[in-house]
Amino acid sequence: MNVKYSVFISNVASCSDRYCGAYGRKFSIEEMFERVKSIDSIKAVDIVLTEEFKDNIETIKECIRKSGLELASVAVDTFANPIFQKGSLSSIDEKVRRQAIDDAKFAVDFAKEMGCKIVTLWPGQDGYDYMFAADYIKERTLFTDALREICEYDKDVVVTLEYKLKEPRTHSYISTVGTTLLMLNDIGCENAGIALDYGHAVLGYENPAESVAICKMYGDRLKHIHINDNYGVWDDDMIVGSINTITYLEFLYWLKKTDYKGYITFDQFPYREDGRDAVAESAEWMTYLIELVDKADSCEIERVIATGSPIEASKLIRKMMRNK
Amino acid sequence: MNVKYSVFISNVASCSDRYCGAYGRKFSIEEMFERVKSIDSIKAVDIVLTEEFKDNIETIKECIRKSGLELASVAVDTFANPIFQKGSLSSIDEKVRRQAIDDAKFAVDFAKEMGCKIVTLWPGQDGYDYMFAADYIKERTLFTDALREICEYDKDVVVTLEYKLKEPRTHSYISTVGTTLLMLNDIGCENAGIALDYGHAVLGYENPAESVAICKMYGDRLKHIHINDNYGVWDDDMIVGSINTITYLEFLYWLKKTDYKGYITFDQFPYREDGRDAVAESAEWMTYLIELVDKADSCEIERVIATGSPIEASKLIRKMMRNK
Amino acid sequence: MNVKYSVFISNVASCSDRYCGAYGRKFSIEEMFERVKSIDSIKAVDIVLTEEFKDNIETIKECIRKSGLELASVAVDTFANPIFQKGSLSSIDEKVRRQAIDDAKFAVDFAKEMGCKIVTLWPGQDGYDYMFAADYIKERTLFTDALREICEYDKDVVVTLEYKLKEPRTHSYISTVGTTLLMLNDIGCENAGIALDYGHAVLGYENPAESVAICKMYGDRLKHIHINDNYGVWDDDMIVGSINTITYLEFLYWLKKTDYKGYITFDQFPYREDGRDAVAESAEWMTYLIELVDKADSCEIERVIATGSPIEASKLIRKMMRNK
Amino acid sequence: MNVKYSVFISNVASCSDRYCGAYGRKFSIEEMFERVKSIDSIKAVDIVLTEEFKDNIETIKECIRKSGLELASVAVDTFANPIFQKGSLSSIDEKVRRQAIDDAKFAVDFAKEMGCKIVTLWPGQDGYDYMFAADYIKERTLFTDALREICEYDKDVVVTLEYKLKEPRTHSYISTVGTTLLMLNDIGCENAGIALDYGHAVLGYENPAESVAICKMYGDRLKHIHINDNYGVWDDDMIVGSINTITYLEFLYWLKKTDYKGYITFDQFPYREDGRDAVAESAEWMTYLIELVDKADSCEIERVIATGSPIEASKLIRKMMRNK
Repeated sequence: MNVKYSVFISNVASCSDRYCGAYGRKFSIEEMFERVKSIDSIKAVDIVLTEEFKDNIETIKECIRKSGLELASVAVDTFANPIFQKGSLSSIDEKVRRQAIDDAKFAVDFAKEMGCKIVTLWPGQDGYDYMFAADYIKERTLFTDALREICEYDKDVVVTLEYKLKEPRTHSYISTVGTTLLMLNDIGCENAGIALDYGHAVLGYENPAESVAICKMYGDRLKHIHINDNYGVWDDDMIVGSINTITYLEFLYWLKKTDYKGYITFDQFPYREDGRDAVAESAEWMTYLIELVDKADSCEIERVIATGSPIEASKLIRKMMRNK
Repeated sequence: MNVKYSVFISNVASCSDRYCGAYGRKFSIEEMFERVKSIDSIKAVDIVLTEEFKDNIETIKECIRKSGLELASVAVDTFANPIFQKGSLSSIDEKVRRQAIDDAKFAVDFAKEMGCKIVTLWPGQDGYDYMFAADYIKERTLFTDALREICEYDKDVVVTLEYKLKEPRTHSYISTVGTTLLMLNDIGCENAGIALDYGHAVLGYENPAESVAICKMYGDRLKHIHINDNYGVWDDDMIVGSINTITYLEFLYWLKKTDYKGYITFDQFPYREDGRDAVAESAEWMTYLIELVDKADSCEIERVIATGSPIEASKLIRKMMRNK
Repeated sequence: MNVKYSVFISNVASCSDRYCGAYGRKFSIEEMFERVKSIDSIKAVDIVLTEEFKDNIETIKECIRKSGLELASVAVDTFANPIFQKGSLSSIDEKVRRQAIDDAKFAVDFAKEMGCKIVTLWPGQDGYDYMFAADYIKERTLFTDALREICEYDKDVVVTLEYKLKEPRTHSYISTVGTTLLMLNDIGCENAGIALDYGHAVLGYENPAESVAICKMYGDRLKHIHINDNYGVWDDDMIVGSINTITYLEFLYWLKKTDYKGYITFDQFPYREDGRDAVAESAEWMTYLIELVDKADSCEIERVIATGSPIEASKLIRKMMRNK
Repeated sequence: MNVKYSVFISNVASCSDRYCGAYGRKFSIEEMFERVKSIDSIKAVDIVLTEEFKDNIETIKECIRKSGLELASVAVDTFANPIFQKGSLSSIDEKVRRQAIDDAKFAVDFAKEMGCKIVTLWPGQDGYDYMFAADYIKERTLFTDALREICEYDKDVVVTLEYKLKEPRTHSYISTVGTTLLMLNDIGCENAGIALDYGHAVLGYENPAESVAICKMYGDRLKHIHINDNYGVWDDDMIVGSINTITYLEFLYWLKKTDYKGYITFDQFPYREDGRDAVAESAEWMTYLIELVDKADSCEIERVIATGSPIEASKLIRKMMRNK
């Protein structure tokens, strides 16, 4: 299995939550690049174009050039900028929606300029919290139209939509693999894809391997992947593999089986850990888990799956884990 | 709001769970019809064609005739018959799949004969429990093909698919409003619809009002509704309105707003209560909740929704509940 | 039912989350007091002694004096100060633990000076996230000893412990009503109590009314209450009553039945709403819900409870809500 | 780590759920014993004294004698007998409560006669489903008194209480490790213990390793263990190790660290699998997981835990899993 790893550059810095404004010290953009560079298996970065990064676009270009790291994807900031707090692409305020569209086009242009094929949209603020406070049809229609405009802006760049059931809103519009594919198929642009976040799938009680299969079936839309780990009910954004083993094995096997060619991007919130070390650990876990998948005999796996037998599957999994 | 209530006929009898085989005594088919008939506001029944009911098809016809109750929908038994324990329409065993299709066609014929427009499919056993024990693409494809065959069998009858995230399988194929619509749109038959179970939506962290909106947007597919109540994380199948009030108000408002014309069928598991009385209570709750929605000023509701303001929504909801 | 409302003073200001550093503008301490003062039914405030508030202790005293608001409780900052990110009272770092104890004693002194009877400890950072990264017995023992020291420091002030299953840690030590009472009973100080947060109870699948009963049974430990609302699986900290109605009615009834005498403190995170207005809405909801409980006939409620009949309970609840 | 395995004898037979009355064929008591006997690593059985087993008590004795299997624990049927559908030890109906107590004493006598040290009580029907339908203080007091009477009946037999957050009731009285220990400590009998079901702990968002630690701290009450696996939010009762790996490693390590000496009993619901084979698979998984724990260096594990470092813990876990 040929895998290309990337990491959200800010993952190697420090983070905050709603209680504590700063768990660790601030890192400069240059430091972040150096810290990523220090992890051998990672050859690329994903960058969210927050104010800080937009204000330092030349620094970023210089860092990319100097570090030799590739740019895996450019993400639009539709969640940290407070202007989008009540929605970005689905905002009922036309000025806000227009800015979200323009920011996305800026990201498309920047991606293209940098030779990057993927723009990521995680519309975390697009949704609602309270009953009787949103017109679900109107807002979803606005969202669809905005997304179509972005996709049509430049067909050379793949625009991926990242779904998540909730948080920061209690209910997101782009919530599950199903509702996301409905919108993408409705738009009908070939360059509209899905960015599947393993942790988001899991917190919505999706089995990530099945989500991969569903993306394959309905338009072959899987174009980007984020990984991390959690306890199954919230986006804990922990070190990859620190909680789940078997779910990960099946997920990786289905990426292999469906011939996924894109990047796998680490996406974590290391509140109390050193960010660089937490990412390095994730990379070690991925190497280990992929080794288990690759050493296993794919024909045997397919044979077991075809039996539909949990007993056979149980024996197979243990054999994979024994790595013999 | 013009509402037609129905009830799964077996709801007025007694039930079992995985621990206790019989919480209450057995009721004859005739008794069940009498018990439904004793609840004034309910004018129809839904019937699952389990072995017991199929073996007494003439009794059922006679009971319907005598009681004057309408037949709201005929449901196919794809979950109680142990032959379908590893799947019905998605079964990798062709004989099993064929039987499921034939049972569905039988239900379509029976529905038509009885002047009933709706057949319901709840494929509860179609899914999986363990990792590496199912080929998600193959089984979902088999499912799609089987469902298409059923829909094409008689275009006069609407075949509705009822989704549920899990149980009895840990993972169902027809899991959420999104994956269900994907399959229905893929099939492309106009007589393929959704049966939305309020409790199923809630346990999958869907907001039922938004699910109604999504069904409207993607093909106007909402054709049947089941109601009950639960604590948000499992299909507790409790008395309607016994837990949730506000979610129900919004759900009912969106049914009104999207001009839903079908039946609303009570679907409960009254383990420790008298089944007839539990259904009668649900009917009382529905009457109460619909009264609250109907007394409210729709223009004011629309105005509040258009503001997108939780504060305005909060005031509105309290006003609706004060019923003044 | 005689109720005293309070509010966490910072609730009327604005907040941040892990994505967005500032949803709204900053408010001065004076402004916060004025905003609380503008809500008629609220006569008191709760204050967390964060750095900002500790640095302005004279301003706070002045604001309390001028506003005429009472001080319902003083909360120790064991969650916003990054020094406590790996634990406060349970920290394995003695210096950190010592600071947490000293901060708590400072809060006790300040409370006493201000004529306030309650100090609140919400040890949100005391817990763990990863497997094999904590000695549960050792840390829980350190916690117990530290709490005992604080309770013994001044027997005139009640030290209340606020439990929550998780967040910011994936697992908190003070997690449920049960584990909290175990620790309090172990300490054996009469001035050790529980601060029950309605939303924390709900997210841990406790029924708040039952939690009130359990506090009563095991030492009559309920001394403070926080309220807000959520969807049942996360601490959404929403406007009181915006989601749950019936659960709240039972909760309030059990407060009445067990003769709760303390404050009821609003505790919300109004990310996208005006904080003052969101609290005012909560106060309106509380007034409404308590009116429903107070108009109901307690003898009838007790008679229904004694039947143990869900059917009777269902009728009762509807009658309460019809408010007739 | 010296482990004694047992299995609920009915686990090797077949089961039902609320939809399907019989997933597999019926097995005789003799067949069940033979099937257990065919699994090499299992040397004991747990037996629930349901009507069927009570009616065949001589057959059971004969089977135990002939098979050479030990009796690990005798469980009282407080959940399958419909008389207990609204509660057993907490029932407000004195006759029902008396029968539950008498059934428990019968189990104590039977256990003693058979040389078995443990009686298990899983009060699955003791709880409630609806608001305003139970007096939580009264019922919990009745429960406590009944349990005390059973414990005092024969001090030579340990009476273990098995907690579970919910199901079959939506809310159980014996819900979490905390509320259970509160009751046991209140009773004050040394022969009152906890039966910890790994799956029950997990579905209540307890980390089983921490639950073991809590049992140790508050009275050293852990006397029996049930194992199975699930997806974290429901009691799926699956093959041990089929979902979770790392949580299991930590759980087993804490059993070792706290010197647990009792049985580990498989407790599963193999709806669609051959029951005997599903238990055999669980035994294989346990052997594998315990091998990983035993090959690891306990001093190193303790050293890592003492650092409190997730990074160190992550490296340690991977090393354990690589089994080198």
